[in-house]
Amino acid sequence: MTGRESGAPLAPIANSPVVILVRPQLADNIGACARAMANGGLFYLRLVAPRDGWPQPKAWRNSSGAHRILDELTVHETLAEAVADLHRVFATCPRPRHIIKPVLTARGAAFELREICRRGLRAGILFGPERAGLDNDDIAAADTLVRYELNPAFMSLNLAQAVMVMAYEWWTTTDPTPPRTLMTNETRVATKADLENFLSHLTDQLDACGFLRNLPKRPGMVRNIRHFFQRGEVTEQELRTLHGIVTELALGRRQMGRIEAE
Amino acid sequence: MTGRESGAPLAPIANSPVVILVRPQLADNIGACARAMANGGLFYLRLVAPRDGWPQPKAWRNSSGAHRILDELTVHETLAEAVADLHRVFATCPRPRHIIKPVLTARGAAFELREICRRGLRAGILFGPERAGLDNDDIAAADTLVRYELNPAFMSLNLAQAVMVMAYEWWTTTDPTPPRTLMTNETRVATKADLENFLSHLTDQLDACGFLRNLPKRPGMVRNIRHFFQRGEVTEQELRTLHGIVTELALGRRQMGRIEAE
Repeated sequence: MTGRESGAPLAPIANSPVVILVRPQLADNIGACARAMANGGLFYLRLVAPRDGWPQPKAWRNSSGAHRILDELTVHETLAEAVADLHRVFATCPRPRHIIKPVLTARGAAFELREICRRGLRAGILFGPERAGLDNDDIAAADTLVRYELNPAFMSLNLAQAVMVMAYEWWTTTDPTPPRTLMTNETRVATKADLENFLSHLTDQLDACGFLRNLPKRPGMVRNIRHFFQRGEVTEQELRTLHGIVTELALGRRQMGRIEAE
Repeated sequence: MTGRESGAPLAPIANSPVVILVRPQLADNIGACARAMANGGLFYLRLVAPRDGWPQPKAWRNSSGAHRILDELTVHETLAEAVADLHRVFATCPRPRHIIKPVLTARGAAFELREICRRGLRAGILFGPERAGLDNDDIAAADTLVRYELNPAFMSLNLAQAVMVMAYEWWTTTDPTPPRTLMTNETRVATKADLENFLSHLTDQLDACGFLRNLPKRPGMVRNIRHFFQRGEVTEQELRTLHGIVTELALGRRQMGRIEAE
């Protein structure tokens, strides 16, 4: 999570959507937007009439190494110029009135952007200035609106956060990661036979030490122990450790018994 | 997108997950995290050993009005103390090694958090310090890891952005907004009969002005015009405007004709 002086090795991503910051005010935010774009696999950035001019060293300092996105961005005097070569334009805006336009959620927009790009068309996403957001003329230049599904009681969304949500959704549309996995690293999830083997070992030792001596209650106690060890996935490595724990505890007990008997 | 001096009217959200910032370094980031939490409907914030002490006025200034989250956060000396009353702890971390633990995507985590909270259990999500992230002991304190599905070529994720993604996913799990809608405001989507009525009007006028005089081509031309007007959903208000356009253009043409004839 640190900046790198040299910049990260980012490369253009063919036909990915263009992020267009309309009249952005703060160079810090432009840098943070570039960083968020890099996080989500977006590369092309355009600025329309940045308030404080361009370039601004602060943007590079706040980009955490997303330098190449800033190095290669283009600056435009008007929004019309910035979208002239695009086929589809989306505009992020909270709640415009008196407008008839399709409205997408961020997730819906990400899926449509993927479809548009797969067809070989170029798409852009407009983000308005920090203070006021996009004005009515900016919005009229867009085909489709994107309205984030977020807490209506607190709509103040930072510019780079707005870019982050879109970049995250863009990346996620094609990410194949399953929602839940078990990270096992060097080992593997144990089979039922492995687990059974451990439970026999444990039960034998518990019989030997007398823990299961109440015979009417024994079946229920064994089942409860099984329920616990089955609750999460257990790995082969963990079973080896558990075997060792049982063996050592039992051995210690027998040795203690021998010492006491002497 | 502006800060409010008085703070936004945020209220505690019963049994929503607790965000735990472990050894956070920058007050600016703590403020930005509070803002992101408010965006996604999270309220409870805990700090473990904040580097520069607490409170820090900068955090309030950078929270864009999410003051109450900062006002009511709690500070803890150790992570163990910060999680003591919780039932489930998630830890966000990029790629730990030599660990056997369930790993969720951000989306997977959001759904599980919803389930946990519905059961009346209290859940927490750990976020590590800006520079180094969570250490191995922090991670061991968690039940489950959350690994964001983001560009592996650029893993440098800002702390507040990490909180934003989680807060966004948390909010989205229960958001009922359809991925695409047509924002029509005061008007409604036109019925097929309304559209047919307009297309008849248009065709009549095009017949009258001679645009469709090539009779062998006429059916195809009429179909193509129909294809265009059917592509997007059209509203009643837009059909009234289109009727008006056709009427006025035709009228203008007839008056021109009359003037030329005079």
